[in-house]
Amino acid sequence: MQTIERNQAFELASPFPYVLATVLTPDGRPNAIGLGWWTFTSWEPLHLAISVGHKKFSHECLEHSGEFVLNFPSAGMARGAWLCGTKSGRGMDKLVEGDLATLPSTVVKPPTLADATVAYEVKVHTKVPTGDHTLYLGEVVAIRGNPELPAHLYSIHYKRLIALGADGSADWDLTHRG
Amino acid sequence: MQTIERNQAFELASPFPYVLATVLTPDGRPNAIGLGWWTFTSWEPLHLAISVGHKKFSHECLEHSGEFVLNFPSAGMARGAWLCGTKSGRGMDKLVEGDLATLPSTVVKPPTLADATVAYEVKVHTKVPTGDHTLYLGEVVAIRGNPELPAHLYSIHYKRLIALGADGSADWDLTHRG
Repeated sequence: MQTIERNQAFELASPFPYVLATVLTPDGRPNAIGLGWWTFTSWEPLHLAISVGHKKFSHECLEHSGEFVLNFPSAGMARGAWLCGTKSGRGMDKLVEGDLATLPSTVVKPPTLADATVAYEVKVHTKVPTGDHTLYLGEVVAIRGNPELPAHLYSIHYKRLIALGADGSADWDLTHRG
Repeated sequence: MQTIERNQAFELASPFPYVLATVLTPDGRPNAIGLGWWTFTSWEPLHLAISVGHKKFSHECLEHSGEFVLNFPSAGMARGAWLCGTKSGRGMDKLVEGDLATLPSTVVKPPTLADATVAYEVKVHTKVPTGDHTLYLGEVVAIRGNPELPAHLYSIHYKRLIALGADGSADWDLTHRG
């Protein structure tokens, strides 16, 4: 065992499940954030958390709306999902540019991504400052999904995306980098 | 898109990267916890968080020690890693029973798992109550790893473990369930 540098560690510990959080911008437009930093935090009630950088436009959106949908993008959404993780929504409609179809959510205001494998609708209950990010913890208020689209996206330390499914489906050669 | 039940959603959204947090028990013995609920939370400084159920022995350990090591167990550690996620360390030495070799950590008191792909040494700085769990956020104070052991473990909704590596290595047929 040897001391290793942070970027090498992140790559070695990959792949990480990659999600898109949909939010509303302060002026009410839908926007999507690509995130590798999220986790469930409680089973009963079901809670989850996402970590968002202070300087990101999505941070401003979350501070404003207090609600989001955590979408697991299915394999076919790779190009748009990558765009959502690498571009700011401040001057761009990432959902249109990324060809990401939306549906109204069942409880929260931000939309759900129509082709997500699973989508968790979340109401934020706690914000925790942590270094250069804020962790938003929320309660899951609805769950929908597309069981016929099991392969969803994972990141290799933000260098590229791959697709894996719980059914054993795998595509390690996705080339969509936006 | 259809409404789906929580367990179906967790399985569909799998695999999740599965980690072992090493801690010290209140009487100073090393112990390891199997966890699917963890995330990085800050890049500079590097922070990460783990979520631990209130009733777990590991919760008691974390309340006592305030330090842990987040280990990514490599493929060969599957049997012991599964044991650490399914048995309590209250009356058992899981490291011995699971045949998990340890090394002294470089900064924190809990040991590091010698055959981990990557091991992050962490000092807890914030505890956040969230439903039936506590989220422990901490700062990474050292990183070590075994780049020659890239394939590490993922859970399929706690039903079974598989092994994946950032290099494209994959074993979907691990049968170690403890």
